[in-house]
Amino acid sequence: MATEDFTNAVLVIHGGAGIITRSQLGDRAPEFHDVLLNALSDGYKAWQAGLSSIEIVVSAVTVLENSPLFNAGRGSVLTHTGGVEMDAALMRGSDLGAGAVTQLTAARNPIHVARHVMDNSPFVMLAGSGADQYVEENDLPTEPQSYFITDARQAQLDQQRTSGTISLSEDNKFGTVGAVAVDVRGDVAAATSTGGMTNKHYGRVGDSPIIGAGTFADNHSCAVSATGHGEYFIRTTCAASIASRIRWGNQSLRDASDSVICDELKVLGGSGGIIALTPDGTAVTTINCSGMYRGVVTESGDVYTAIFEPGSGTWTRFAC
Amino acid sequence: MATEDFTNAVLVIHGGAGIITRSQLGDRAPEFHDVLLNALSDGYKAWQAGLSSIEIVVSAVTVLENSPLFNAGRGSVLTHTGGVEMDAALMRGSDLGAGAVTQLTAARNPIHVARHVMDNSPFVMLAGSGADQYVEENDLPTEPQSYFITDARQAQLDQQRTSGTISLSEDNKFGTVGAVAVDVRGDVAAATSTGGMTNKHYGRVGDSPIIGAGTFADNHSCAVSATGHGEYFIRTTCAASIASRIRWGNQSLRDASDSVICDELKVLGGSGGIIALTPDGTAVTTINCSGMYRGVVTESGDVYTAIFEPGSGTWTRFAC
Repeated sequence: MATEDFTNAVLVIHGGAGIITRSQLGDRAPEFHDVLLNALSDGYKAWQAGLSSIEIVVSAVTVLENSPLFNAGRGSVLTHTGGVEMDAALMRGSDLGAGAVTQLTAARNPIHVARHVMDNSPFVMLAGSGADQYVEENDLPTEPQSYFITDARQAQLDQQRTSGTISLSEDNKFGTVGAVAVDVRGDVAAATSTGGMTNKHYGRVGDSPIIGAGTFADNHSCAVSATGHGEYFIRTTCAASIASRIRWGNQSLRDASDSVICDELKVLGGSGGIIALTPDGTAVTTINCSGMYRGVVTESGDVYTAIFEPGSGTWTRFAC
Repeated sequence: MATEDFTNAVLVIHGGAGIITRSQLGDRAPEFHDVLLNALSDGYKAWQAGLSSIEIVVSAVTVLENSPLFNAGRGSVLTHTGGVEMDAALMRGSDLGAGAVTQLTAARNPIHVARHVMDNSPFVMLAGSGADQYVEENDLPTEPQSYFITDARQAQLDQQRTSGTISLSEDNKFGTVGAVAVDVRGDVAAATSTGGMTNKHYGRVGDSPIIGAGTFADNHSCAVSATGHGEYFIRTTCAASIASRIRWGNQSLRDASDSVICDELKVLGGSGGIIALTPDGTAVTTINCSGMYRGVVTESGDVYTAIFEPGSGTWTRFAC
């Protein structure tokens, strides 16, 4: 099974899973590793400063949303009508606090909106034009469409439109981003942010903003952020299922993740992966496809980033 | 704990939970019992005909959506802008098939739209104006706003607007509807439909259309439909949590439902209830508040409907 194990982890991040081949990526791998390292660095600084696990995951996801390389925030894929529709969610393991937004079209950092919903509203989830209205009424930072849309995403949409398909193919689902962290108090948190799928219609909602599907955190078990073919992650309540197997079935984090990703999801036909972390710093990255942009930083500042199969990444250490 | 147990059940329905008092209800209780009996009757006929559990729950929920007494379909509560925004979801326990829609403004039967999404699209969940567009493009039946809006709901909104609050109070959350069923093959299914909460803003999404929160079904454990203060049901992944405690923790249906509704949810402050059913016909209705419109029919056509505390209902038998 395609699982990597880590101990003493404080932050794990992903930038999407799918069929990633070395030939497709060409000589661009270092660009991806650099952004992953920047996200881990910002999150690690928050951990060192004793900030909450929510601050840590938001710090890391903000870096990934701001990078045009990943399908979240800037660089989100384009819908059928040529714009962005962005989703995000986060959850706090200490009290099951949660916030989620779907179909944002203008917020610079969707994960900040999800956090604002969690911290300042009586709601958990906002959708559609009402979510944009929430951003506007609360004066949260926005950007024009030109900020979000990259040449690469426009080319993907043009190709999809020409072929006349709604993309559920691997090639266009890369890049959902996410993070799981544990703070010095032992509280876990999870965050996920995505632009969804290229050429999507009908206000399709994937797993990322669904609490229990793409995003879940509970101090009784673990924090999970998922990426992949969202419909299957919703049907299996993927993130909550991993947590439940640990809490109620006494499974290890590794066994629970393997069972859900490499068995249950794979049988249904759902490809993708997850990152997960328990309050004691045990972490896994699990995929049932060829690659996932991912990274881990441990208490001591040892840092690992990888794209392809387990063990294919490199370890370095932050100067701290 | 406020749980009722049943055996040999084939269909359980609810029409919302909350603080329901005998004085509020006055002499209108028979009207509610009549609609519950009609929903059970249609579902029981589908069961007798050997139809699937999806057909059974859709039959029952259709009756409840068509009644102006409940907060789903016709009779949905009104949003801040005076219209309806309806959500629905359903799930099949044999293969985890699922469909969900949120923020429908015109579809006559939201549960039929959720089923169409499950049966005919590559998606699980559609939201916002895109969901309405899906209804239109697939020629699903719609109605003008006048069909949905009742005098009672208009009066509720006027009262809420006058007081300037977004309603999260019990008085205005009554009436989400749902059903769980098991067919002659032993396959379970769950369905939930709601108009959400009176005077809602910002495209708030509650638990009803969230797979794992308000709606869940898995032949390995049970089918669940929830009703109540949705934000808490999302944070606890209520429906999936009951199923997981059964599947992974070897808890009984009753213990799992009691733990989630009367312990975990209540500690967080979330009021409401659930109906749940296992493939062997064991069923519960569990509430942590004073009442839930509910009903059960067994294999032999024995039928129970109730509104207040456990045991307060009456048994009759269908002529069959």
